[in-house]
Formats: sequence, structure tokens, C-alpha cells
Amino acid sequence: MGKVYLVGAGPGAPDLLTLRAARLLASADIVLHDALVHPDTLKLAARARFIDVGKRYGKVSTEQRFIHRALVEAARTHEVVVRLKGGDPMMFGRAQEELDALAAAGIEAEVVPGVTAALAAAATLRVSLTRRGIARTVSFLTPRVGKGETESEWLPSALAADTVILYMAAGAGPQIARALIEGGKPPSTPVALVESATLPAERRTFTTLAALADAELPRAEGPVVVCVGEVFRDAAAELQIEKPTRAANE
Amino acid sequence: MGKVYLVGAGPGAPDLLTLRAARLLASADIVLHDALVHPDTLKLAARARFIDVGKRYGKVSTEQRFIHRALVEAARTHEVVVRLKGGDPMMFGRAQEELDALAAAGIEAEVVPGVTAALAAAATLRVSLTRRGIARTVSFLTPRVGKGETESEWLPSALAADTVILYMAAGAGPQIARALIEGGKPPSTPVALVESATLPAERRTFTTLAALADAELPRAEGPVVVCVGEVFRDAAAELQIEKPTRAANE
Repeated sequence: MGKVYLVGAGPGAPDLLTLRAARLLASADIVLHDALVHPDTLKLAARARFIDVGKRYGKVSTEQRFIHRALVEAARTHEVVVRLKGGDPMMFGRAQEELDALAAAGIEAEVVPGVTAALAAAATLRVSLTRRGIARTVSFLTPRVGKGETESEWLPSALAADTVILYMAAGAGPQIARALIEGGKPPSTPVALVESATLPAERRTFTTLAALADAELPRAEGPVVVCVGEVFRDAAAELQIEKPTRAANE
Repeated sequence: MGKVYLVGAGPGAPDLLTLRAARLLASADIVLHDALVHPDTLKLAARARFIDVGKRYGKVSTEQRFIHRALVEAARTHEVVVRLKGGDPMMFGRAQEELDALAAAGIEAEVVPGVTAALAAAATLRVSLTRRGIARTVSFLTPRVGKGETESEWLPSALAADTVILYMAAGAGPQIARALIEGGKPPSTPVALVESATLPAERRTFTTLAALADAELPRAEGPVVVCVGEVFRDAAAELQIEKPTRAANE
């Protein structure tokens, strides 16, 4: 019986993986990975079989049930099983369902944390999510409603936090901005949209809630993190007069 | 004129550093580091000078002003300057003040994200901070009030979020629990305290808001993350009957 490692692949750039994750990939017999994992990251698993269990909103989707079956089957036939997830496994990754399925099958599991998308966005924007006198609470949430879920109460949490980071929010920007303004956030609140953070295709856009509420956003090619809060004001003022810059890993 | 890299050292275990951070440390001429950075992490900077600018609550503290001066001076006399911060630089790290001081001195800076303590705690607890049907909003905050700050409004954000992670909360547990109960969180809400996450000295304690409100906690030896929310219920039920377990890196 093998052991399953739920491993965070980090936000995009292959060198934003942890040393522990790299070591586990090197010793992996089989890797079950998300669609968004970088090809260079997969190359670290030199002797592994690969199963792409990738799910992307609006694209070909693998049923979560299938992932559970594939994980259990992998652990029965391989010693070191790596389940490689984008960002950090414990944030918006459905990791608990996978851990529970493994526990039910009597399979040992361990979680290796990773750099989550919000912190990659903060790094690339060079904006601290907390800042003395301006922001001491940060809320991470998603406006997306999953299959079988009811409309979630994300708004009160977003309104109460100084800094708000929305995951899986591509396309929902205008709707989010309208809800936040109606809830009482000042329309002038700065917003930063970061697409494909830390990758060569990274795009950063600065705006305000008021402008975002009326915007027609171009279709995103990669994952988008929407960052809302006063902490983004200086960066917005500074970077709007610069040309778009590229990620550090190029 | 050198360049300053604000680098996340990760939550504790030296192999939870990113590959990019390890590469930068190897090429560093000088490293200014926090008190909580692991000695093995510093060994990665084989040819660097070190300056300990560590600050720990209640212990010897370096003035933030001194750190700014030391960073600017380091960049004037060295090519690759690494400012190594525990966890991720952009979360409760006063990184913005350091970035602003560098910008004011005309010094180039880049931020390398890291694994933040909350995600290390989630990994070691094997509890996802988000979970379909139970938790879709996560709030990160600190109850600590810094020098010159007024009492912050952390409570509404904590009450509105499904999962709450409190940083730098050692010693404040009972006070936090009482405030959350008075604000309307059910007294039976599960709480997990994780001290020195991912280090050999790691300790995990499961309790409830009601029990924590009346607890006399032993003095913590390392940093403590307080995790509050329904997502911790199963782990609490399961682990209370187990002996304390050790971190994965031993």
C-alpha cells in the first residue's frame, strides 16, 4: 500500500514550488495533476507516470469522484503517489474530499503546503496585503457557486475585511464590484486584477470598484485573482503610468 | 547599487522554502533575516554576510527604522541583498514599509512569495480551510495592536468569515474566544491551536471557543496560529483520541 502526498505546486512559475515538493516529485512513482501545473514542474518527476485530472471552469472537467477512485487505485499499485494541485492544496482545492476518500480507503496521506495565488499576486504587485494603519484583516473567498451548492454568503465577509482577495473570479468582476458598492464599500476603492500571476503571460490591471462595475472585461486566458482594498492605492497610482511589466521569472 | 529581494522563508521547516528563494540565497552577498528563520535555511546562503534584524513579541526587538537603514546601506555596498522574512513577506510582515523605504532611496526591489503559517497549519492538521457546503470564506487577521496603532476592528471580519485564522495570537486565545462568543459565534465552534508548525517542536491542540475562553494556556515557545471554524470539527474528533503526533519533516 502506497502513501499519497497532496502537494501544492505553487502559483504558476515552476521555481515557486517548495524544496520538499521538488524532492517528493523526484521520488514519485505516479503523479495525478491539475490542468494548470507548469510542464517544467512535471519534469521534476523524472520517473513517474502522469494522470491529468485537471479541471478548469468552463473546460473539460474531470468528475471529483473519478479523482478519488484514481487516487485510491494509484496508492494500491504504487509506493509514492503525488497529487499535485495548483497553489496551495488547502485553499479552494477540494482537498478535504480527497483526504476523506483516502482515509475511508485506509490509505495514508500527507499534505505539503504551497504558495497560494493571493500571495503570488501580492508579490508581483509589490503590495503587502496587510499594512499598519490601513489593513489588518485579509479575506480570501470565491464568488463561484459549485454544483449542488446554494448561493453563498460571501458578501458580509468581503465587506468586513480591509483587504479582499477573490479566487476563481474571472468573469465575475463587474458583478462582484456592484455587490461590494451596494454593500457599502466606497466606489473609489482600488482594485487590482492579476491574471496568470508569476507566469510570462502575467497581466496586471488596476482599476476601482466603480470602473470595474461597468467594465466589459476581455476573456481571461489564465486564472485571475481579484484584489480589493486601500492597500492597492499607491501601486495603482504608480503603475498606471508605467508600461505593463513582465513577471520576475522570465 | 544592489538589488533587494524580500524573500519568504516559509513557515518553519527549511524544506518548505521555494526553489527560487533557495537560488537567491545561494547567490546572496548579504542576508538580513528575522529571528525565526531556521539555521539550515541560512546555511543555503553559503557566501553571504548575515545581519539578524529579528523581532519577537516580548523579546529583544529591532526598530523598524533600523531595518530600513540597514537595507539601504546593504544595497549600497552589495549586489544581491536578501531580506529573509518568516512565512510570506506580504502577510503581517511590515514589508510595505520596507518596500517604501527602498523605493524612496531609489533601490530596486523584488518580492518572492512564501508559504504562510496558516497554510502550514492547515497542512499539518490535514484540514482544508475551505470546504464545499461548510466554508467558502477564510479570514486572516491578527488581534495584536502595534505601537502607535489604535484597537483594530478585527471582530466583524472574524464573525463574518466561515474559517478564521489568527496570526501572532499567542496569549490572546482566551480573549479572542470570549470576543467571538459575545459576537455570536457558537461556543461549540471548534478551535485548533498550532504552535511551531512544521518544526520538530510542533504542538497541536484542539479545543472549542467555550473551553478556550476559560483556558489558562501554557506559555508558547514558538509562534502560534489560532484556527477557528467548523472545518476543524472532524480533525478535532479524530485527533483527540490519538497521541500527539510529530511534524512530517522529522
